[in-house]
Amino acid sequence: MLSVTEAQELSAAEVREANRFLLRSVPLGETLGRTLAEVVVSDIDSPPHDKSIVDGYAVLAEGLSAGTELAILEEVTAGAVPTQQVTAGTAIRIMTGAPLPAGATGVVMVEKTELVGGENRVRIHETPRSGQNIVRRATSLRRGETVLHAGVRLNPARIGLLAEVGRGEVKIASLPTVAVLTTGNEIVPVDTIPGPGQIRNSNGPMLEALVQQLGAQPISLGVARDEPGELAALIRRGLQADFLVLSGGVSAGVLDLVPGVLAELGVRQVFHKVNLKPGKPIWFGVFPKEHNNRTLVFGLPGNPVSSFVCFEVFVRYALGCIRPELVPQSKLALLAVEHYHRGDRPTYWPAICEEDKTDALVTLLPWKGSGDLKTLADANCLAFFPGKERVFQAGEEVSVRLL
Amino acid sequence: MLSVTEAQELSAAEVREANRFLLRSVPLGETLGRTLAEVVVSDIDSPPHDKSIVDGYAVLAEGLSAGTELAILEEVTAGAVPTQQVTAGTAIRIMTGAPLPAGATGVVMVEKTELVGGENRVRIHETPRSGQNIVRRATSLRRGETVLHAGVRLNPARIGLLAEVGRGEVKIASLPTVAVLTTGNEIVPVDTIPGPGQIRNSNGPMLEALVQQLGAQPISLGVARDEPGELAALIRRGLQADFLVLSGGVSAGVLDLVPGVLAELGVRQVFHKVNLKPGKPIWFGVFPKEHNNRTLVFGLPGNPVSSFVCFEVFVRYALGCIRPELVPQSKLALLAVEHYHRGDRPTYWPAICEEDKTDALVTLLPWKGSGDLKTLADANCLAFFPGKERVFQAGEEVSVRLL
Repeated sequence: MLSVTEAQELSAAEVREANRFLLRSVPLGETLGRTLAEVVVSDIDSPPHDKSIVDGYAVLAEGLSAGTELAILEEVTAGAVPTQQVTAGTAIRIMTGAPLPAGATGVVMVEKTELVGGENRVRIHETPRSGQNIVRRATSLRRGETVLHAGVRLNPARIGLLAEVGRGEVKIASLPTVAVLTTGNEIVPVDTIPGPGQIRNSNGPMLEALVQQLGAQPISLGVARDEPGELAALIRRGLQADFLVLSGGVSAGVLDLVPGVLAELGVRQVFHKVNLKPGKPIWFGVFPKEHNNRTLVFGLPGNPVSSFVCFEVFVRYALGCIRPELVPQSKLALLAVEHYHRGDRPTYWPAICEEDKTDALVTLLPWKGSGDLKTLADANCLAFFPGKERVFQAGEEVSVRLL
Repeated sequence: MLSVTEAQELSAAEVREANRFLLRSVPLGETLGRTLAEVVVSDIDSPPHDKSIVDGYAVLAEGLSAGTELAILEEVTAGAVPTQQVTAGTAIRIMTGAPLPAGATGVVMVEKTELVGGENRVRIHETPRSGQNIVRRATSLRRGETVLHAGVRLNPARIGLLAEVGRGEVKIASLPTVAVLTTGNEIVPVDTIPGPGQIRNSNGPMLEALVQQLGAQPISLGVARDEPGELAALIRRGLQADFLVLSGGVSAGVLDLVPGVLAELGVRQVFHKVNLKPGKPIWFGVFPKEHNNRTLVFGLPGNPVSSFVCFEVFVRYALGCIRPELVPQSKLALLAVEHYHRGDRPTYWPAICEEDKTDALVTLLPWKGSGDLKTLADANCLAFFPGKERVFQAGEEVSVRLL
């Protein structure tokens, strides 16, 4: 049977062939947290003109001293443009952010002035310095300057900057679309009371949330019964997405129809069954499409913890080949209590990892197996035990994958 | 002038009065990352019946030994229910997850069996233990058991668990709705080439991204010109939200109409102007509504870095009174290079904080002032310098707020 690493490498090779769905142009409002996939250059100077940073009077600072009276030529507000030139003996009233009039070499704050003889003359109470209260054109951005490099993660300040340079749309490194389909005669919708032998569809919402958590938009295909026609119809819809994630129907039971239906629809199997616990029956294949495009198909086992672990170990790994920041964090932690690891399958075990200043300590939860979603919901990590049955001692270092 | 802390406390008092908009019932698909606001109890046992965890044969294990042949009574798949009872000398074929038939005390894996004489008889190749390959009813969940407590953050496993216990909708601690309005005659839309004296609306997209980042849905009101009628109409729409965040128009200039229009519409001013840099002109008030409800109104200064800092320091603080996890992380870091802090206003300065194993080092960026969004976009933190002009030495500890 394949090891986890061998299986991951097989999937990575297929994903790299498919990575043409990387770049998408999206409106600025949808870019938070996404990775920019182009170099963005400013089309403006910022500020676009010399501007005042206070409300006050634009003056010719040279030769002007406190106590002087000046004639007010006009008033310039932000968004307006001065029509006159400041000369010795005159001033133009100016608002914060407004363009500096020609001739002006400084701005006196309104608090250091007083109107005299109506609205037409102002007395200044300080001796201005040349350049005071002025920000020069292009101080923060110069036209043609690179403002953001490809590969940066977009945060609110960067989104504001993109808006400032006129980019209402940008190319981002987009995640594939991911269709999610739950299969099984025993599965009923969440809002149903299960009858005898039935369970609710917990995998659908869980897998869709896992897709969302990675920043991609899940496409929910609902539940398919174990019936070849119904399965084929829903799988065909799912194959329109970049990824199709199924749960259930991949073991060797009489109703495990998924691999057969996938094969009939032209999905080429890459692997089936991997040496891990939970999740051994995992299935992976590739569906070739037009224009050298392809859909990557993951058949996850139906038990919820198996589905979860296989998503984390395989689907997320494949997506991580496209967006490396999706590769989950692993760390070493000390086992709080001795653990007897049964069987020879490498195992992911729901656990709680706690850290103090120097160490991380991992406590295994009393996990009841691959159907026990409650314990997984209580966990903050999966502790990993490599193959071969043996006792892991308290204090021994194990690898944990943070959730 | 108010200090930052005094202003934050004034806003916190108003937010606490308003915290009736906390709880909302939302569909499961919208709960990722949200905080659960109710205690959730299981309405089912999980598994709902004793079940087989392998494909194989349900048998009466006691007294049975390897080599025995058994008559096959029927086949039970997942989702079906057994109709017969297993007795000595008989077996029922059973699939993974299917309910255990009455009388059965163990399951022999299909791999350890072989069909003999057609489809009706099976020979078993192992001596089964009582209870083997069976998971008992209610092993992972018992009906009436609390599965999730109020206050937990919803992740994919917990969302799966909520689906398992039939909760297609849950109450979450929801953030308020936040309307965002940019004001100013000089502001043009992002997809426009600015004319003389004009700048693009960078604050709108930036503030909306800040709202999104906190997990709330922004309501975009676009741009209002400095004209009382237009301002009043858009502000009236914004007052329907729980929070209204405006940018621009809050200084003392002739076109700073926002405080006046807010007062006319019945918004009670709580404070105006706070001793910080950038962001001094910040305005905060409360609009009383029916049913003892209220809208919290923040008027942020129009320069983009001032708007950003005031959002982080005041709007986010107010939202943090409702959802404590929104309070941003602050830490101490060592100043990489000496810094001369001018003036007596406490200042937030865009900077880069880098960590090694023992220390965090903060390097101030060459920030050009409150219009310089480019430098803020390059920063990963804001370094804080308390009031009073003085030299901060290289190696001196300063507080940084991570972005």
